[in-house]
Amino acid sequence: MRERDPTGIAVDLAAIRDAHARILAHVRRTPVMSCRALDDAAGAALHFKCENFQDVGAFKARGAANAVFSLTAAQAARGVVTHSSGNHGAALAWAAGRRGIPAWIVMPDNAPAIKQANVRGWGGQVRLCAPSVAAREAACAAVQAETGATLVHPYNDWRVIAGQGTAALELLEEIPDLDALVAPVGGGGLLSGTAIATRGMRPAARVFGAEPRGADDAQRSLAAGHIIAQDNPRTIADGLRTSLGDKTYAVLSRDVEAIAVAGEEAIVAAMRMTWEKMKIIIEPSSAVPLACFLERTLDLPGLRVGVILSGGNVDLEHLPWQT
Amino acid sequence: MRERDPTGIAVDLAAIRDAHARILAHVRRTPVMSCRALDDAAGAALHFKCENFQDVGAFKARGAANAVFSLTAAQAARGVVTHSSGNHGAALAWAAGRRGIPAWIVMPDNAPAIKQANVRGWGGQVRLCAPSVAAREAACAAVQAETGATLVHPYNDWRVIAGQGTAALELLEEIPDLDALVAPVGGGGLLSGTAIATRGMRPAARVFGAEPRGADDAQRSLAAGHIIAQDNPRTIADGLRTSLGDKTYAVLSRDVEAIAVAGEEAIVAAMRMTWEKMKIIIEPSSAVPLACFLERTLDLPGLRVGVILSGGNVDLEHLPWQT
Repeated sequence: MRERDPTGIAVDLAAIRDAHARILAHVRRTPVMSCRALDDAAGAALHFKCENFQDVGAFKARGAANAVFSLTAAQAARGVVTHSSGNHGAALAWAAGRRGIPAWIVMPDNAPAIKQANVRGWGGQVRLCAPSVAAREAACAAVQAETGATLVHPYNDWRVIAGQGTAALELLEEIPDLDALVAPVGGGGLLSGTAIATRGMRPAARVFGAEPRGADDAQRSLAAGHIIAQDNPRTIADGLRTSLGDKTYAVLSRDVEAIAVAGEEAIVAAMRMTWEKMKIIIEPSSAVPLACFLERTLDLPGLRVGVILSGGNVDLEHLPWQT
Repeated sequence: MRERDPTGIAVDLAAIRDAHARILAHVRRTPVMSCRALDDAAGAALHFKCENFQDVGAFKARGAANAVFSLTAAQAARGVVTHSSGNHGAALAWAAGRRGIPAWIVMPDNAPAIKQANVRGWGGQVRLCAPSVAAREAACAAVQAETGATLVHPYNDWRVIAGQGTAALELLEEIPDLDALVAPVGGGGLLSGTAIATRGMRPAARVFGAEPRGADDAQRSLAAGHIIAQDNPRTIADGLRTSLGDKTYAVLSRDVEAIAVAGEEAIVAAMRMTWEKMKIIIEPSSAVPLACFLERTLDLPGLRVGVILSGGNVDLEHLPWQT
């Protein structure tokens, strides 16, 4: 990656285009869908980029694939390591499998068995640790010391950010005249990539983040002018409980107009509405942008808006609207 | 429609092309999706035509639209009538609404309130009757006598059959080299249209029906050489409980190689697998073709197979795999 920007931001549209060429053979070009009933509910013309249909069921495949296929042969031979109990861990194991290299995924020992099994199913080696940031970092460092594996952070990594930006790149290729783009924000990798791609391809378009009111650290961080870590997040949107990193904070500060928030009730309603009306399965994190429209904390009347649906990994035994 | 065939079959590929031109502005060109995990489970390369994304959530929009837009202005002014407690009733109300004409939908008085509300939501006028064939036919006749409305049978109608065939037409336009096509069979409208389109566009391709073992009247009818009515159907696939009509029986007899059957457990497993792996919502009837592959009552190793996913209208409060 290049260091060309005085802000230290090392990813630009060219880097996202490079990432796209690198991962093209490995990820799906997901469809863009729309739905009149949802447009009516949102008061805007929404174009959904369906990363719930992506391999491993989430956009995370893009960033993981870009990181893994950016490695030199010597680096690759020693494998990759990350900490994640969610989609990034599965995606990194999947991407490493595509390159035929080992992946170690550090997970808290209270991570559900099904998530551990999922990582193993993609060929990843699970390392359990105590559920704390210190234990997690120590476990990653131990794997690196043992194996020489390259750390691929879930979001605070330029290779990952460039990869995540390829979703917005494809969306803007397909619908070039969008007035705005919205992506959910947890650690900020997806939103950073979305914002950089949009800045390069359609500078006139506005870029917004969407996060749960119970994990609104991105909104508070941008308002404060420095990173405020999220402690004690309270939201069903389990992909969005993390805090920003310095890289994603820098991009969001420069390229994102505002972060909207939505409450839990609206998130569940938006998720259910998407299932019922669009007939597609999205996870709660994916529903947060629509939830912001339903609450009108995002209000873009009549505009053409691209929305990244981040993933579709849910437990079909227990749906959030079922009592 | 033309009467050119000695079998009395009045729909050919040209009629399906006419229907397609007629309804193009009203229905969605639904996407074709595929999924490696499902291919592995089925032992074949499956290409799913996603009519669950169709307007009103089912392929029924196609046949209803073709029937409604085939009417002369004088006929149309008097409206349409049908009997249906399911997707066809909603679709006919929807299509009539698109043309701005009245639709009367006769439903049994034990039809769930939500289905009645759905028909009314599309602008249809619900007429309740006792839950018997005789009462249903009397109610339709009464509406016709009162209003002069045109009866649009859910499947035993050439206009409806031609409309349903447009799904396979689009599928074969998109993937011309299919080795086989499979559609679920209830009354046989979808399978008839699929078979006629395939016969015209790709005569080398094999055509199969798929039905629940608990409502296997189509398989028994084709084996016996005459229509055997389905009494007491026992299946979760509520769209497939009906019997064939004389028109659909004639087409199936001529153009369908075989009808495969699947049990309830496989139907639920196939439905769940589609939700989990493809991240799309399909109703139980749509899962029957895949269920036949899972049971290997359909066994087409390595072939390229088009599968019509008929619809996606389900009750999200109660999923069939939840106890």
